[in-house]
Amino acid sequence: MEKLVRVDRLTEEELLIDETIYSQANGFLGTRGTFIEGYGKDFEHNQTYLNAFYDKYDYFYEENLSGFPQEGQKFVNLIDGQKMEFLVNGKTLNLNNCSVLSLNREYDLEKGLTTRIIHYKTLEDFEFVLTEEKLVSVYYKELIAIRVTLESINYEGKVTVKSFLGISEKQYSEEEDPRLRNGQSKYLEITDISKKLQSITSKTKRSNLYLSTVMMHSDDFTIEENENSLVGQNEYLISPKKKLSINKYLIYTSTLYHDNYLEDSKELVNKLSNVTFDELINKQIKYYKDFWKKSQIKITNTPYIESLLNYNIFQLNSSGGESEIHNISAKGLSGEGYEGHYFWDTEIYMIPFFILTNPKKAKNLLMYRYHTMGEAKKEAENLGYSNGIKFPWRTINGEETSPYYPAGSAQFHINSDIAYAIIKYFEATNDLDFIIDYGFEMLVESARFLKEAVNYNGDHYHLNSVTGPDEYTTVVDDNYYTNELLKYHFSNVATLYSKYQKEFSKVFTKLNVTKEEIDIIKDIALNIHLPFDKELNIYTQDAAFLKKKKLDLSVIPEDKYPLLLNFHPLFLYKHQVLKQADTMLSMMLLDFEDESILEDSFNYYEPITTHDSSLSKCIYSILAFKLKNYELACDFFKRVLETDYLNTQKNTKHGLHVANLGGSYLGFVYGIVGLRIKEDHLKINPVITEDIKGYEFSVMYHGETINIKVDDQLTLTSSGSVSLKVYGKDILLNGIYHTALKT
Amino acid sequence: MEKLVRVDRLTEEELLIDETIYSQANGFLGTRGTFIEGYGKDFEHNQTYLNAFYDKYDYFYEENLSGFPQEGQKFVNLIDGQKMEFLVNGKTLNLNNCSVLSLNREYDLEKGLTTRIIHYKTLEDFEFVLTEEKLVSVYYKELIAIRVTLESINYEGKVTVKSFLGISEKQYSEEEDPRLRNGQSKYLEITDISKKLQSITSKTKRSNLYLSTVMMHSDDFTIEENENSLVGQNEYLISPKKKLSINKYLIYTSTLYHDNYLEDSKELVNKLSNVTFDELINKQIKYYKDFWKKSQIKITNTPYIESLLNYNIFQLNSSGGESEIHNISAKGLSGEGYEGHYFWDTEIYMIPFFILTNPKKAKNLLMYRYHTMGEAKKEAENLGYSNGIKFPWRTINGEETSPYYPAGSAQFHINSDIAYAIIKYFEATNDLDFIIDYGFEMLVESARFLKEAVNYNGDHYHLNSVTGPDEYTTVVDDNYYTNELLKYHFSNVATLYSKYQKEFSKVFTKLNVTKEEIDIIKDIALNIHLPFDKELNIYTQDAAFLKKKKLDLSVIPEDKYPLLLNFHPLFLYKHQVLKQADTMLSMMLLDFEDESILEDSFNYYEPITTHDSSLSKCIYSILAFKLKNYELACDFFKRVLETDYLNTQKNTKHGLHVANLGGSYLGFVYGIVGLRIKEDHLKINPVITEDIKGYEFSVMYHGETINIKVDDQLTLTSSGSVSLKVYGKDILLNGIYHTALKT
Repeated sequence: MEKLVRVDRLTEEELLIDETIYSQANGFLGTRGTFIEGYGKDFEHNQTYLNAFYDKYDYFYEENLSGFPQEGQKFVNLIDGQKMEFLVNGKTLNLNNCSVLSLNREYDLEKGLTTRIIHYKTLEDFEFVLTEEKLVSVYYKELIAIRVTLESINYEGKVTVKSFLGISEKQYSEEEDPRLRNGQSKYLEITDISKKLQSITSKTKRSNLYLSTVMMHSDDFTIEENENSLVGQNEYLISPKKKLSINKYLIYTSTLYHDNYLEDSKELVNKLSNVTFDELINKQIKYYKDFWKKSQIKITNTPYIESLLNYNIFQLNSSGGESEIHNISAKGLSGEGYEGHYFWDTEIYMIPFFILTNPKKAKNLLMYRYHTMGEAKKEAENLGYSNGIKFPWRTINGEETSPYYPAGSAQFHINSDIAYAIIKYFEATNDLDFIIDYGFEMLVESARFLKEAVNYNGDHYHLNSVTGPDEYTTVVDDNYYTNELLKYHFSNVATLYSKYQKEFSKVFTKLNVTKEEIDIIKDIALNIHLPFDKELNIYTQDAAFLKKKKLDLSVIPEDKYPLLLNFHPLFLYKHQVLKQADTMLSMMLLDFEDESILEDSFNYYEPITTHDSSLSKCIYSILAFKLKNYELACDFFKRVLETDYLNTQKNTKHGLHVANLGGSYLGFVYGIVGLRIKEDHLKINPVITEDIKGYEFSVMYHGETINIKVDDQLTLTSSGSVSLKVYGKDILLNGIYHTALKT
Repeated sequence: MEKLVRVDRLTEEELLIDETIYSQANGFLGTRGTFIEGYGKDFEHNQTYLNAFYDKYDYFYEENLSGFPQEGQKFVNLIDGQKMEFLVNGKTLNLNNCSVLSLNREYDLEKGLTTRIIHYKTLEDFEFVLTEEKLVSVYYKELIAIRVTLESINYEGKVTVKSFLGISEKQYSEEEDPRLRNGQSKYLEITDISKKLQSITSKTKRSNLYLSTVMMHSDDFTIEENENSLVGQNEYLISPKKKLSINKYLIYTSTLYHDNYLEDSKELVNKLSNVTFDELINKQIKYYKDFWKKSQIKITNTPYIESLLNYNIFQLNSSGGESEIHNISAKGLSGEGYEGHYFWDTEIYMIPFFILTNPKKAKNLLMYRYHTMGEAKKEAENLGYSNGIKFPWRTINGEETSPYYPAGSAQFHINSDIAYAIIKYFEATNDLDFIIDYGFEMLVESARFLKEAVNYNGDHYHLNSVTGPDEYTTVVDDNYYTNELLKYHFSNVATLYSKYQKEFSKVFTKLNVTKEEIDIIKDIALNIHLPFDKELNIYTQDAAFLKKKKLDLSVIPEDKYPLLLNFHPLFLYKHQVLKQADTMLSMMLLDFEDESILEDSFNYYEPITTHDSSLSKCIYSILAFKLKNYELACDFFKRVLETDYLNTQKNTKHGLHVANLGGSYLGFVYGIVGLRIKEDHLKINPVITEDIKGYEFSVMYHGETINIKVDDQLTLTSSGSVSLKVYGKDILLNGIYHTALKT
């Protein structure tokens, strides 16, 4: 597999973007691609995060209305150990003190290893090549390992090496962007520093999480203790062609993931003192060999697309889903954008990848929701409801923490989004135990909230004052997406109830589910209003959407995007303008069949969508594939792949757009391959395009692995018996099947 | 006229409410009814305000969206001089150190004078009667004058009197109420303290307003200077039956109202050094004699109603309208609720009183709007509009400062509310100069904004994403109130254009008004959509209102009101529930004629209205009078009168509900008398009720004074020739007219 290589990107903007691109994580622990020697610049800011390791702070409102969340939540930037100094004649090697003759960066996706080679020249014309290899271990989930190699080109003499462990000075902030929190204070208090153990223990101020951070070096460093840090020092004599190599290991254990975080830390130190950097690489290779076997998408002759697609899958996989007590944040573990919050992005954009390649992770992510049902119950009460649960728009610990309800708490569709993911997980895995023990409870409780929310007018059920996925229209009546997903959600509750009377008997009792209640749920599913415009032959985004003015996007200059940063919400809300797929997202998710309505809806909504959200283009790409508009579909698909790599949203420096990473996978598998998960079969309609003439990858369905290969024909290979619908034809695949391509 | 008397109200709640009830103001300067000797309690908090004397502070938003106001504004609590101490054996006479044998408070509405007589008994059983007489001078607009008299009952010996002038320590705050700002800092910096002049000069931090405050005593006090204050001291020997009497005058001059505030202050000190307290009272009597002649409402045999009604009128008159550079804040000058902001309350609830009794003040209030057109232009641009002006929802200096746009900036009706007041002023006064020089410009510029806002669908004009007066429903399409007022506003622009072609030629040129533009304005007036429900025979509050669930108010406990403090906005917004008159307000203002629709609308909206706003009951009272439902009408009317006196909104301690004071007048004049201002006549339909069997008052129309007297018949007396419509009959009144009462 090709490495992701970038060279000589040295401006501030490039360095910050590449910190994101070369960020590494193992689902638990993540860190950005900073320079271990630092930049010597103002914008230097090391960031390391532990998934779900967060603290709280007070929210402030000028008008603090009833029910507004009173506390914010935020990933905590951990104790930092990725700082070393290489002093030559008293001057540190870094961008501030040296010129750079070359910079080469690589991401090895088969090893989960980044390598950065930088060629410095000092003011005295001494030249050094510094190589930093870094990995966040997939085997030791608490470990960040770095190997630094310093090679002198023309210098002979002493090099002093300092190595730091200490509290991170800065929290990320960028005031003009409302999506970022102005980090106003430190969240970690140091509780203990040990010179002997080279460790710092610390604690969050409000969430009361404890963290132990230990540094280990392959050489003996003399350690000094300061108030907030430990500083190791060692001296070396080097000469041209003689390389100096040091390993630095950082171990993070916490009360979040360890019953005995201090003891576990000590054990790990003991264990790792005998583990070489190469041995760590070998463990990475083993893990990723298995990972790529399940997940890789091979594309014939288009390495650029193949490389970006697999990079995106790789980063998606690194972002979380390793445990039931965390989820995947909007930026994964690659940055502090959105404060590390989890959104419905997980269920709609990310989980499909895991369902189809690693169902255990999909289950973990759904179990996170199960464990936060208590908080969701409280939020339902907070919104004035007596029944059920309301899953949050943004959260770390399960509590709703959106301070702007029109684009936050008002998104009632999240209950059904999570239901959708539960149902798709079940359809793909047949994991009945999960549904009995956890899934059905979530489906019913989240339905109960919506059941109380709907409003029967004697004819249809309506849902008032809610916001759909698109945030350029908020607090509306009968958002089509929300109602259509609710319909799907409620239908499935009713179906499961009928189908598994015996298997579910215990859970019915536990939840006090009665036939009367299910009858109402069924009735709502049948009679929820879906706003439709006959003349235009489209479903309308909400009851009033078509009555608004269209916004002429052609007259808005490029620098006014994203619109939300440049226009008052009232201006956006009064126009027909979309930030992202809304009605169309529903049509994608529910595999909307009427091609005439689909096409008219696509042609209506796409031109008024700005795609200011990274959750948009992938959906339009998939639907364009379905509508056989391959040129547009491929164009969207490429732009999805490039989102972070080319910084097209202009904020990749705040972290990866993880929903878009998932969207890349969806764009390929749901778009090009036309795959959909159905209850009793997997549907595929693979096509080829100008750019993508052949490909091969595998998915899992009902416990079997299915290999899908497209070259001059379509070849399907399964590990056992599975039902498929290929180009509309039902087949029972068991072994190999060939058929001609249809386009 | 009866004095407003209250006795022995000594709990914290009663004291704070009575600070509001006994607050005094002259339109410029206002102060609350605190005790000059203080309470010696935590809640002691002297407050003195100068109308429009404000400072700014930073707003903070967790999500700082585009176009949100970035600065708050706030009345500044001025340098305080209403603190004296009376020390007997080293102990100050106050509530903390003494028991109280009696407390008697009076508001003399013929003098604008409050008198408080408190009988203290010290721990040593010494008794004193302290009398505080206070006035905020209507003649010297910069003066607060206090006469304190201390009478010993059984003590003989020394009394030390201290007298303070200094910066106020506290800003009012009550965190749980979103309508109050948590006062987070001091706004005044002291720039100079002079022992000799007994003066402190100070300055606001951001708005750069300067203030001079001088204290004067009738006796010689020895003055000491501290960092933030001056302290005068004097000693007296007193004995039983011997009264000690001291006058303290406080003079406030500022750069806001004085070109040479320091010199003017000195001049005033000179002038006032020869003016006795009794002379000040005489000037008050003179002013109020004239005031009551124009404004008093005499009611036969119901002193309770008469007294409250005239008290409310008195306080409304004191609240502002004395200058073109201030307006009338929601709490007048009687407290810090709503931070001293001006709202559309002025135009809709307060101005009618001034139009009918003192048109000069009505003009001042409208001129304030004229002077803030520049800020309103900026706000229009901020909202994304190229044309016209958008008047703010809340402001002091003219800039929109509402941090919660759904119940703030989204209220586009304010442009038409101001237009309505301009038109009513013009209809009542025939002041064509005002319309030519100022009024028409405001009418056109505020119409231009709305003209850009409306949305033509080929059939009707619609107005999307706006909020009406009711704040329990926000950001809706086609709010009936807004559209109906817009229709009135636009029709009047068109009519004025046609009628005054010659007189307005200059202003047409200045504003670049063309026939084409007026044709569009006329077309919008004719074709603006007014949502109507045929089945219910009512105008609907907005396009979607009737589609929402009704909220069962009968199950909501008393302590959950006002709902906005206890329910999430999303819960309120999804229900048919109203904070205040909305559709009905429009029907009142525009004298809606179809009694069947009016009655059905009243019966539909009233039961779902909580009247959580003090802007509501007066409107329902007026309409109930119109519908001849006298019992309900009178009940509402009494509750309007009692709002502050009985603290029915539970927040009178934050200040008077000045819109409701205006509403009291409206309730009488528009309700009981059925008066409406029309272009070429004054319409009246006087009734009597169980409680109100006779009355007499005067109004002004077209420069003439009309006396309206009801006893066993209706008697009208005019100073000159005026057109009236009495019980539907046109009459030209010139002198006296008698007719029978119709009920």
